Amino acid sequence: MPELLPRARASQESVFARMSRLAVQHGAVNLGQGFPADAPPAFLLEAARRAVGTLDQYSPPAGLPALRDAVGADLGVDGADVVITCGATEALNVLALSLYGPGDEVLMLEPVFDVYLPQARLSGAQAVTVPMRLDPLSGWSLDLEEVRAALTPRTRALLLNSPYNPTGTVFSPHELSALIALARQNDLWIISDEVYDELYFGERPTSLRTLAPERTFTVGSAGKRLEATGWRVGWIACPPGLSGMVAGIRQQGSFCSPTPLQAAVATALPLARTEGFYEGLRQEYAGRMALLAGGLRDLGATVFTPSGTYFLTALHPEWKAEELVEHAGVAVIPGEAFYARHVAPPGLLRLAFCKSRVEIETALGRLQRVRV
Amino acid sequence: MPELLPRARASQESVFARMSRLAVQHGAVNLGQGFPADAPPAFLLEAARRAVGTLDQYSPPAGLPALRDAVGADLGVDGADVVITCGATEALNVLALSLYGPGDEVLMLEPVFDVYLPQARLSGAQAVTVPMRLDPLSGWSLDLEEVRAALTPRTRALLLNSPYNPTGTVFSPHELSALIALARQNDLWIISDEVYDELYFGERPTSLRTLAPERTFTVGSAGKRLEATGWRVGWIACPPGLSGMVAGIRQQGSFCSPTPLQAAVATALPLARTEGFYEGLRQEYAGRMALLAGGLRDLGATVFTPSGTYFLTALHPEWKAEELVEHAGVAVIPGEAFYARHVAPPGLLRLAFCKSRVEIETALGRLQRVRV
Repeated sequence: MPELLPRARASQESVFARMSRLAVQHGAVNLGQGFPADAPPAFLLEAARRAVGTLDQYSPPAGLPALRDAVGADLGVDGADVVITCGATEALNVLALSLYGPGDEVLMLEPVFDVYLPQARLSGAQAVTVPMRLDPLSGWSLDLEEVRAALTPRTRALLLNSPYNPTGTVFSPHELSALIALARQNDLWIISDEVYDELYFGERPTSLRTLAPERTFTVGSAGKRLEATGWRVGWIACPPGLSGMVAGIRQQGSFCSPTPLQAAVATALPLARTEGFYEGLRQEYAGRMALLAGGLRDLGATVFTPSGTYFLTALHPEWKAEELVEHAGVAVIPGEAFYARHVAPPGLLRLAFCKSRVEIETALGRLQRVRV
Repeated sequence: MPELLPRARASQESVFARMSRLAVQHGAVNLGQGFPADAPPAFLLEAARRAVGTLDQYSPPAGLPALRDAVGADLGVDGADVVITCGATEALNVLALSLYGPGDEVLMLEPVFDVYLPQARLSGAQAVTVPMRLDPLSGWSLDLEEVRAALTPRTRALLLNSPYNPTGTVFSPHELSALIALARQNDLWIISDEVYDELYFGERPTSLRTLAPERTFTVGSAGKRLEATGWRVGWIACPPGLSGMVAGIRQQGSFCSPTPLQAAVATALPLARTEGFYEGLRQEYAGRMALLAGGLRDLGATVFTPSGTYFLTALHPEWKAEELVEHAGVAVIPGEAFYARHVAPPGLLRLAFCKSRVEIETALGRLQRVRV
């Protein structure tokens, strides 16, 4: 028999899928993969139940017009510049294929969300990563000089994530302006992964697109926004005039996104605003974050309070993710999963607090017993 | 501003999306794109309405275990060898990325389903096409000698489609055995696109996998099986032991398929058998095919009766698809859309009969007026 290609043989189960599988296998509380414990809002579910049986056939590859317009209205862009994808993962993959290829470099920060690296590899480009600084007292910070030093004539794009998974960083307007200045000086595209744009705990994050509309592709996710990570409805807001080509590449990957779920999201996006859904979510998650952070600190962990996302990072030198899932019954993501080029800070873990209070308390109780 | 990559600039709206858009624009009856006029069966819709609100978060990238098992049971393979995808389009793309790349050739037949060529290009491989013969009296036929002559030491895979869109051909066990012999002699993978496996009008099609399980990847589609083309639930049945790597590449493209719709399909696949759904569909479509074929013959077209799929091909020297959609109010797919390397038979059109009888009759009435 012939062999699969190296790129297929190199493909491994993602750490998120693997830890969720191990969590099920060992009966562990799953604070690993970032999917919420709560059901999506009723206004979304009702809209989906109505759409099923009515809108069941192909949509245009760029998306249902009603959803492109709803996303555009939500973000303040023209619906014609929006391309709907099968989740943000596909959005990021489509942009990797559209913006860089063999001989190019794409610059991203480390810790790095796990799908960025294999997508760059599949595009043919080289991923160049710049490490975030981690200070045990002041937490995560961006070193702009290191970003500048990593640019080369081959750099084609900056891939950023704010609010940032896993660090929880929300970049300040000052930091974003400095990054944009670099992008303009070096004629770079910007891919801004903003799937946690409504999950923040302080100042509202600034969207990169508002500062550099001419070169920024904004990636968003109905799954993250509306607590339905399995629905596979994401989007790209493109600089004007580019959505047609991006949709052209996208149609070759999966043709279109699930039509009835697109229709439901189109109905739900404006309702999420009028019903105050995001405010409620932020309030609830702030409480769960405090519960988890306080409990971890009581157990001797150094916790870095996130400004956004539903994750926190913590340092605990004695906890190993592989052992915790098997022996303590708690699944978390090991810091090394987010590092490929640089060394992860020792003892770094990512924990999700988009889980129920009962799950968080159960996990803390189990970790307490590990400690003794 | 930098430019998009050539592969993005070369991406064009597919002919199916374009003709559907033109159909809406001109108020045309849409006999172009292959989506059914009828709603999906109630047992599928009910299952989806129950799954929404219950199974809304990520599934494993390889698919919900219940769906992998249901597909496995339906096809007679182990569920562990099944990978669920966002429709058959993604299944084909994942296989292109897994099985061939730069320096490789993939052999396919022409007329060619439109997504095969750009997917081969994105994989880095070269598509080599072998033309089907078209005889006005006896219809479409495969020339095995031409297939043999097109093989080179660089050929890595055969990409076949049976029942065959657009020709409607169902390859005989004899033809399949001859193709398999070539694949075995040349150590080739076989990608068998069998999305129309339950849509046939004579003998039940032989699945290539049953003749060459060691090297055949079978692509299937819940959208085609269950009349829900917009649901984005497809599958790959892999040779034993390869599903993990295929799922690894798949997770980088869209992570997973829509979870509630996967759950609904898992429930519906066995029900489709027990309720005789496919038999009913075949019976109904046989009637609509006869209606369309008879009407077209009355208008002077040469019609090639399909053995499977819900398409027929016809020759009519005076009809041009671009003119029909604009001036006659009937959208069809021009034969040239399926030809890239060879010249399409003049006057070739593909017409879909997965439309309502009223639509088919209306289209025939409009074509009648064109003729006069």
